[in-house]
Amino acid sequence: RLSKKLEKLHPADIAVILEALPHEERMAIWELVHSDIDGEVLLEVSDAVRESLLAAMDRDELVQVANNLDADELADLAPDLPEQIMQEVFTALPLADREKLKFALSYGEDTVGALMDFDLVTVRADVNIDVVLRYLRRMDNLPDHTDKLFVVDRYGQFEGVLHLKTLLLSDPDAEVSQVMARDVVRFHPEDKARNTADAFERYDLISAPVTDENNRLIGRVTVDAVVDFIREASDEERLAQVGLREEEDIFAPILKSVRNRAPWLAVNLVTALIASRVIGLFSGAIEQLVALAALMPIVAGMGGNVGNQTITMIVRELAFRQLGNDDIRLLYSKEMRIALINGLVWGFILGLITFLLYQGLALSAVMMAAVTLNFLTAALFGVTIPVVRMKLGRDPALGSSVLITAITDSGGFFIFLGLATLFLLR
Amino acid sequence: RLSKKLEKLHPADIAVILEALPHEERMAIWELVHSDIDGEVLLEVSDAVRESLLAAMDRDELVQVANNLDADELADLAPDLPEQIMQEVFTALPLADREKLKFALSYGEDTVGALMDFDLVTVRADVNIDVVLRYLRRMDNLPDHTDKLFVVDRYGQFEGVLHLKTLLLSDPDAEVSQVMARDVVRFHPEDKARNTADAFERYDLISAPVTDENNRLIGRVTVDAVVDFIREASDEERLAQVGLREEEDIFAPILKSVRNRAPWLAVNLVTALIASRVIGLFSGAIEQLVALAALMPIVAGMGGNVGNQTITMIVRELAFRQLGNDDIRLLYSKEMRIALINGLVWGFILGLITFLLYQGLALSAVMMAAVTLNFLTAALFGVTIPVVRMKLGRDPALGSSVLITAITDSGGFFIFLGLATLFLLR
Ligand SMILES: [Mg+2]
Ligand SMILES: [Mg+2]
Ligand SMILES: [Mg+2]
Ligand SMILES: [Mg+2]
Ligand SMILES: [Mg+2]
Ligand SMILES: [Mg+2]
Ligand SMILES: [Mg+2]
Ligand SMILES: [Mg+2]
Ligand SMILES: [Mg+2]
Ligand SMILES: [Mg+2]
Ligand SMILES: [Mg+2]
Ligand SMILES: [Mg+2]
Ligand SMILES: [Mg+2]
Repeated sequence: RLSKKLEKLHPADIAVILEALPHEERMAIWELVHSDIDGEVLLEVSDAVRESLLAAMDRDELVQVANNLDADELADLAPDLPEQIMQEVFTALPLADREKLKFALSYGEDTVGALMDFDLVTVRADVNIDVVLRYLRRMDNLPDHTDKLFVVDRYGQFEGVLHLKTLLLSDPDAEVSQVMARDVVRFHPEDKARNTADAFERYDLISAPVTDENNRLIGRVTVDAVVDFIREASDEERLAQVGLREEEDIFAPILKSVRNRAPWLAVNLVTALIASRVIGLFSGAIEQLVALAALMPIVAGMGGNVGNQTITMIVRELAFRQLGNDDIRLLYSKEMRIALINGLVWGFILGLITFLLYQGLALSAVMMAAVTLNFLTAALFGVTIPVVRMKLGRDPALGSSVLITAITDSGGFFIFLGLATLFLLR
Repeated sequence: RLSKKLEKLHPADIAVILEALPHEERMAIWELVHSDIDGEVLLEVSDAVRESLLAAMDRDELVQVANNLDADELADLAPDLPEQIMQEVFTALPLADREKLKFALSYGEDTVGALMDFDLVTVRADVNIDVVLRYLRRMDNLPDHTDKLFVVDRYGQFEGVLHLKTLLLSDPDAEVSQVMARDVVRFHPEDKARNTADAFERYDLISAPVTDENNRLIGRVTVDAVVDFIREASDEERLAQVGLREEEDIFAPILKSVRNRAPWLAVNLVTALIASRVIGLFSGAIEQLVALAALMPIVAGMGGNVGNQTITMIVRELAFRQLGNDDIRLLYSKEMRIALINGLVWGFILGLITFLLYQGLALSAVMMAAVTLNFLTAALFGVTIPVVRMKLGRDPALGSSVLITAITDSGGFFIFLGLATLFLLR
């Protein structure tokens, strides 16, 4: 009965159900899923769940799944399949599919080569529209997301595209060459997936051709793969912000989670120790004036906020477009000026509060100066960190928040306690 | 010459160029953009840039732009247009368009009603495929993203869809009713855009019908609008994490930026003051043992990291699926156990470091206990905050990070200094 219900569900819905179930129930349902769609389900589930599902399958099942998939889908699953199974499946493939699989496997996760598929419907430029219509009518099916046919010459060279729209609206006696589009957005397999996603968004694409350096048509990218890529990229970014590399399955073993969370805590241990040693330098000052201990986290914390706001704005700019030196200079000047105004405003407020709490005019002035200086430090490094990372070819966002907080913590303590030592103590 | 070049560019590319230019050059280029595509460019630019472009246009230009747009596009632009212009355009519209515009304006930004357009090609179920083909051939154009035609009866009731694919592959003598799909993913205008985006991703949709409560077909959602929505939502989330409400144009006036950044700093001021007062409670303890001042930020900071990791995992789970009470109990137990293990491990390491630095066995034990307790606090509130926010119907992510950091800061100081007072001092 349950099995009947499962048959009616879309593989993506089954994937969601499997992800929501604890291990044993998940495996029970997985048994019931018809083997025809096992492959599609495996492509939809999260990495952690996929591992658990594959672990429950025997050799024959794995081979069957692999045989049901297209070359590009198999390539997506390959990293999680046992080496030996892959070998076996590979040698059993027809030559053309073997080439495709090798091709798809040769490109990294964040390239067009990994995003693309090989489901092309091609036509020649010198045939008539009604010939194309009859040709299609003899096919069983068109690949999903076919909004255009690809026009190639007899050597496989890409010449343009024939939109289905055009096909439907044109005079049946017209030749493809008369109505095809030649000026088309296209990609190369080594292009960054990120830029391709931007182009899909900008030009509202459904599918686009992928050609090699010799203008040979080798595949296509479709919008569903792009949507998956965008979602995964933003999910990874969210995890990376708190130093998590892998998604955690909520039913996964605790120790795996502990390990997943360790690196960020280790980094934070180091930065916290540095900040602590900075405070240690000034223990004499704190002993003389214990109010400093209560005030110093305010300076550090608010500086951290300013730094994180600045970094967020800069990373955003860097994501949207190339920044030239003029732009960068402008960003520095803008962020520093905002920090100065903010520093003076919030520094004044904090100076006032300090005066109300501790009645020391000099202490209040030190507070105000420290807040302003730490805000300026935050803005300076808030621009510098992502810009330098970008110039080094790295992801400008990754780990930036940890770094800026380390700087504004240690810097804030140093500035505040240093100023206090200079002006308040003797 | 420049004007010629601009004519060849896609409106979305012109939008990117305008966004990258400082005010004066931006306005100079904007003058050169042909008025035919002014509207499309306005729809593509960021909110901040749109404001600056609209401000430079006179009444006639605005009316012309508005007249060139579809009702759904006009609705998108409406919030930025002067009331008076909207009135004028509205009364000049044909009745049908007026209805559509009113309809599109009546739904909030995050609903299907705001996402959808009215570009429907409809057919009847009782005609033959070749009639449909001839019908299409008489049209000048099909709307973008037409991957299916919508089948309605003569009362406008939605009956199903006819995929272009099916249209092309079917026998011309077949009746639409024989080949149309009746079991179709569809939406209602009041549905959340978020859920619709999920469905598009899950079922790899290109377009989908929107029907009202009486099953009348009123519009469609297309994947390009969904992609824009996904991108904008993740951008807004990124900004919200650091308390920024609006995107800031890098060429915008400084004071606008200062205002944009103020709310988060104000919140942080309050949370930092609370933490500071907690420390103030224990100034006697710090005076006696100044090492406490240097160690307390470590306890607070690392607790903050644990809390943010937990919140990130929980928000992620909440985004992917509905969590039942069992799931929530499981999450509490999992996160608390991870926090306990992490607390003991990292607490031990910090205890050791404390001993190396200060040679106090009791101080080291207090350090270890405080780290563990603050990690547990972090996990407890790291689950509670997003879960409660979700139960209240709020966005579980919004402001969660600020809140958890406030708790782990004040909590960390209280736990550490409190334990120190109890066990280290007399
Ligand atoms: Mg099975
Ligand atoms: Mg992955
Ligand atoms: Mg692939
Ligand atoms: Mg495929
Ligand atoms: Mg778009
Ligand atoms: Mg568009
Ligand atoms: Mg103009
Ligand atoms: Mg907006
Ligand atoms: Mg709209
Ligand atoms: Mg439209
Ligand atoms: Mg999908
Ligand atoms: Mg799919
Ligand atoms: Mg902090």
